[in-house]
Amino acid sequence: MAGNSFGNTFKLTSFGESHGAGIGGVIDGCPAGILIDFDFIQQELNRRKPGQSKITTQRKEKDEVEFLSGIFEGKTTGTPIGFFIRNTNQKSKDYAHIKETFRPSHADYTYQQKYGIRDYRGGGRASARETASRVVAGAIAKQILSQIGIEITAFVSAVGMIRLEKNIEVVDLTKVEANIVRCPDENLANQMIAHIEKVRKEGDTIGGVVSCIIRNPPVGLGEPVFDRLEAELAKGMLSINAVKGFEIGSGFEGTKQRGSVHNDAFVIENNEVKTLSNNSGGVQGGISNGENITFKVAFKPVATIMQQQQSINEKGEAVQIEGKGRHDPCVVPRAVVIVEAMAAITILDFYLRNKAIKI
Amino acid sequence: MAGNSFGNTFKLTSFGESHGAGIGGVIDGCPAGILIDFDFIQQELNRRKPGQSKITTQRKEKDEVEFLSGIFEGKTTGTPIGFFIRNTNQKSKDYAHIKETFRPSHADYTYQQKYGIRDYRGGGRASARETASRVVAGAIAKQILSQIGIEITAFVSAVGMIRLEKNIEVVDLTKVEANIVRCPDENLANQMIAHIEKVRKEGDTIGGVVSCIIRNPPVGLGEPVFDRLEAELAKGMLSINAVKGFEIGSGFEGTKQRGSVHNDAFVIENNEVKTLSNNSGGVQGGISNGENITFKVAFKPVATIMQQQQSINEKGEAVQIEGKGRHDPCVVPRAVVIVEAMAAITILDFYLRNKAIKI
Amino acid sequence: MAGNSFGNTFKLTSFGESHGAGIGGVIDGCPAGILIDFDFIQQELNRRKPGQSKITTQRKEKDEVEFLSGIFEGKTTGTPIGFFIRNTNQKSKDYAHIKETFRPSHADYTYQQKYGIRDYRGGGRASARETASRVVAGAIAKQILSQIGIEITAFVSAVGMIRLEKNIEVVDLTKVEANIVRCPDENLANQMIAHIEKVRKEGDTIGGVVSCIIRNPPVGLGEPVFDRLEAELAKGMLSINAVKGFEIGSGFEGTKQRGSVHNDAFVIENNEVKTLSNNSGGVQGGISNGENITFKVAFKPVATIMQQQQSINEKGEAVQIEGKGRHDPCVVPRAVVIVEAMAAITILDFYLRNKAIKI
Amino acid sequence: MAGNSFGNTFKLTSFGESHGAGIGGVIDGCPAGILIDFDFIQQELNRRKPGQSKITTQRKEKDEVEFLSGIFEGKTTGTPIGFFIRNTNQKSKDYAHIKETFRPSHADYTYQQKYGIRDYRGGGRASARETASRVVAGAIAKQILSQIGIEITAFVSAVGMIRLEKNIEVVDLTKVEANIVRCPDENLANQMIAHIEKVRKEGDTIGGVVSCIIRNPPVGLGEPVFDRLEAELAKGMLSINAVKGFEIGSGFEGTKQRGSVHNDAFVIENNEVKTLSNNSGGVQGGISNGENITFKVAFKPVATIMQQQQSINEKGEAVQIEGKGRHDPCVVPRAVVIVEAMAAITILDFYLRNKAIKI
Repeated sequence: MAGNSFGNTFKLTSFGESHGAGIGGVIDGCPAGILIDFDFIQQELNRRKPGQSKITTQRKEKDEVEFLSGIFEGKTTGTPIGFFIRNTNQKSKDYAHIKETFRPSHADYTYQQKYGIRDYRGGGRASARETASRVVAGAIAKQILSQIGIEITAFVSAVGMIRLEKNIEVVDLTKVEANIVRCPDENLANQMIAHIEKVRKEGDTIGGVVSCIIRNPPVGLGEPVFDRLEAELAKGMLSINAVKGFEIGSGFEGTKQRGSVHNDAFVIENNEVKTLSNNSGGVQGGISNGENITFKVAFKPVATIMQQQQSINEKGEAVQIEGKGRHDPCVVPRAVVIVEAMAAITILDFYLRNKAIKI
Repeated sequence: MAGNSFGNTFKLTSFGESHGAGIGGVIDGCPAGILIDFDFIQQELNRRKPGQSKITTQRKEKDEVEFLSGIFEGKTTGTPIGFFIRNTNQKSKDYAHIKETFRPSHADYTYQQKYGIRDYRGGGRASARETASRVVAGAIAKQILSQIGIEITAFVSAVGMIRLEKNIEVVDLTKVEANIVRCPDENLANQMIAHIEKVRKEGDTIGGVVSCIIRNPPVGLGEPVFDRLEAELAKGMLSINAVKGFEIGSGFEGTKQRGSVHNDAFVIENNEVKTLSNNSGGVQGGISNGENITFKVAFKPVATIMQQQQSINEKGEAVQIEGKGRHDPCVVPRAVVIVEAMAAITILDFYLRNKAIKI
Repeated sequence: MAGNSFGNTFKLTSFGESHGAGIGGVIDGCPAGILIDFDFIQQELNRRKPGQSKITTQRKEKDEVEFLSGIFEGKTTGTPIGFFIRNTNQKSKDYAHIKETFRPSHADYTYQQKYGIRDYRGGGRASARETASRVVAGAIAKQILSQIGIEITAFVSAVGMIRLEKNIEVVDLTKVEANIVRCPDENLANQMIAHIEKVRKEGDTIGGVVSCIIRNPPVGLGEPVFDRLEAELAKGMLSINAVKGFEIGSGFEGTKQRGSVHNDAFVIENNEVKTLSNNSGGVQGGISNGENITFKVAFKPVATIMQQQQSINEKGEAVQIEGKGRHDPCVVPRAVVIVEAMAAITILDFYLRNKAIKI
Repeated sequence: MAGNSFGNTFKLTSFGESHGAGIGGVIDGCPAGILIDFDFIQQELNRRKPGQSKITTQRKEKDEVEFLSGIFEGKTTGTPIGFFIRNTNQKSKDYAHIKETFRPSHADYTYQQKYGIRDYRGGGRASARETASRVVAGAIAKQILSQIGIEITAFVSAVGMIRLEKNIEVVDLTKVEANIVRCPDENLANQMIAHIEKVRKEGDTIGGVVSCIIRNPPVGLGEPVFDRLEAELAKGMLSINAVKGFEIGSGFEGTKQRGSVHNDAFVIENNEVKTLSNNSGGVQGGISNGENITFKVAFKPVATIMQQQQSINEKGEAVQIEGKGRHDPCVVPRAVVIVEAMAAITILDFYLRNKAIKI
């Protein structure tokens, strides 16, 4: 089976290409009777959309979503929600040079080999433009989670070597949207912005890290042994373009520790079960324990660079290739909302799945 | 839907508890006509089984698997393969002390809250003993992959601060099984073993990292946009007990790099498409590119320590708790084969899924 | 999980309502490299569309489909195919009278109770207009099956008591489209048409039967024990509005027979394995045996009648209700292509699934 | 993907062959905290087991089920329930004659062609013995449904031409188990028994019909548009060996009727919404409306007859074949509990799925 659906009970099926008619999706399993805040959805799309600041690609897309079904008089009806975002600013001519050439570290070669055909314009289906559909579904999931009291916030914690080392639980999340790089530390944010501008001027790109915290989750989310909460989160994050790593809680750092240091002691605070530390990242045995769920996502540098690179063409000949078109020098500022969206879909899905545990 | 199945086309459904009748599984979708090497399956189980060396738990289990269906005259028939490993060495009395107490960083609390009931003996379903079913399925998947020419090898690359920094592609994989900690560098292996023994004597535990390489994969494995190769690998790995992180290719290290350094240039070698570097870890756009697939898995320190810890009981009272029973001081030596198993299931599943791309 | 997807490997996800923006779908898992005949898709839609003849509803819809993704330069790319048919001729005012009233034998009551909300206009999601998306997917499936040599043909075999008793295998299938009721027996067809007109004039409706034959299937389609060929066909057919029964091969008639009469003897004809009779309907043990696959589908009379009926409203008060709007007096002429579509999706899905049986 | 799982949220995965080690299954998604009545499960197995009366096969199997996981101190834990029934009375020698020969209207030929290999002994995986796993899962589902107030009862309504024509809703269901053929009309039951004995003496077999009624279902079960209640019921029934047809409510008889006769008028009785008739069979728009759910299942005559038949062998040569071994002359008396089991699994599955409709 093909892999363009995500989620079991709250399920997004995604379609669309970068330079085709547009990007869309179908959400099946959205709970009925939810009043939709369309402005919020657009705001979320705006956080992802190209051309939003000087450190993103300059492609201009309004990214306006049309809802095609599943909503009646402003409310969800429990039937599938179809939606579509038309592409309006494609410049397919920018891509004529890659029609028969495979860009290094892009999906051109693998799509061509797997399917025997590809829409090469703008990366086609492999373009990160596809994530717009995730943002729409994520914005709806967030609204529903918000009613349950769950809040999801991501932010940029690293651009290249510039790194926010603070414990994620003490970061001031109100500052995330205060700057264009979406790092809640103003000083670091300025460094990051300057670095991205420098890298861009050099025709290069740079990687980064997005951190995410899910506050106030209920106990009980996650379906072990395979569909653990952290396993589905990992899948969701690794399904985002350019992601190369995922950590929950202590992550790779925790591999250096001893159990006596790493264990999260249980205590009772205000009649609630809490843990003194949260190295577990809010998950034990694949199930949320009620603490904040915290994780990090690694993004590699964007593959399209404005420099000469060695590559090959469809005939297997060596060629030189140089990036054209409009591209991001660093993907993490726009990826923040995508990480949140995938987290929201995952958490809502588990929330709904958890309802079947007891009759 | 509950989450005890993994894979789409080659699908393992797992069942069983640590101190119940045993651990089992059903493989649905195993290709027909495969001659099964039962000795190999037992060897793989032996690599996972407790009591195999001085640095693992001393629980003694033969871990002998009985095949219940799906194999006729030594060959798979295409019908579901049921199998079962009886528990023989349970000491449930060791667990009476946790009947009403939640061990820190264990699944006791979350299972109790989610299901309202739990088999507390030995962690029940949350025990890593459950992974035996994965090893059986993995051993069958490996045999099939081997016929296609794909080889999967994992090894221990870190125990606490002792770390093998070598590029995974130049490690001597023939040395993995040469020592009990399964680190292919003899010098480091000795340090790791000594460290584990020291930690154990102190009643403590230690984390570690397992690295894995999949050699000779075909181009075309992976089903974007959600079921990318790396996304399903990440899910599979994060579904293993105690795993807190996953990296493919350059992983978190790659977030520090520039595109001009990170990109993997295409070249033609011996009439084959290759890349000069492999920061992608063998995957581009969610699809294997024919290079080796490389990834790392982070294991936290085992939660059960032989030291007093603060915790609570079911009544919400503060209690002191100390580990009893037989436990691993470090899980990575036994986890190597589990990582390989989940990788093998994932790769075979994608291999079979990929057959439906063209008529 | 919600139920708006059909198929495993070739999978249609459907969305849309009768009086909303339109009807659409996403096909995930369509094989790559297929040249699409768009005219054929429109022809198939025309066979289903309202207003096509004097014996169907007079609602006029062009039913023009826009493809939103997954097709590049006329060929499928292996990525999801999104499509949409805009509604253009809704007369929602016709439905104001049912806003708070439940029509007998309609889905008004059950949708309202299940979801707590419903788009009452034209039946909303429960309208048979939804089947347009199936016809689009079916038309694509048919084109692919045609390349493999498989042909699917349905026809009307009964309208009320007027019944074509002929063995389905000797019916002249070239005559199906020769008349507006789609019964290949001209004499019976004329009787059926006259009967439908009479029934309509009386403000009433009438049931009927659609028969279907799948010619030249390969041996091996079907995935027992649960996903038998006939089980998925039955599900597909019972998922169509107004369907109340399904028979494969001898069906209910076969329950009266003895094994010595019913069994299909194997013979060799022209070096091919054949059966002398085909009471099995082309399926044995849930798997196609290479004979024609034959089945029948029972459609109840349309629920909307132009007569006074007893019913209740949302307050639980007894009311009289009479149909308004434009409706079919008999659904089977338009259902022929829907039956074919669901059969085509099912057969192609099994064809693709069958490819994973051997490595 | 292979097809040995049924259900979405309450999911049975089945394995095992007629003459292998045994028949088993895994239930994933069983609600937690259910006290299991093991005696009831055995009683249900006894209703299915061979050798129970003079009109069934004389193979003697105790059909004792061992539960392998998922139950702790008598209660379900929410983890997967593995179970196994060992075969004890195989007489594989009875099947040596079909090792290289394909029995007419059996699955020998299709399994051999599909998989390239088959366990020919007793039909292997294609044997109706596989349904024992369904009965176990069904017995658990029934216990849970019983707590919600839902009762499922099936009975034999036809053996050959001997037919119970009574409306299913007025049949005295307390009489079903009063005789060995499981027809609640004593007079007809005696005729059926005599007829089956006569048929058996002639070395022949006979078909029949099982009717089923689900009493007291809640409103709201079913997930349109594809996973309608009747669609999943149809799939479940057609997945049973020897089934060739399914009808819900008025079924094929309803195709002869007019809407004015067929429609089920809504009324209020004792402050509850009811319908005056129940031609819908308890389902409207794919969703239960609270009325009894009624359906019929057609079983063809058993294929194994003790008469000479024409067939072919693996070399494609014409052969004569005659049934050996111990077989049922008529399958419906033993099929009653299988129909109930598949209905129970389906209804419980929809009950659990329905919980995700609202937050």
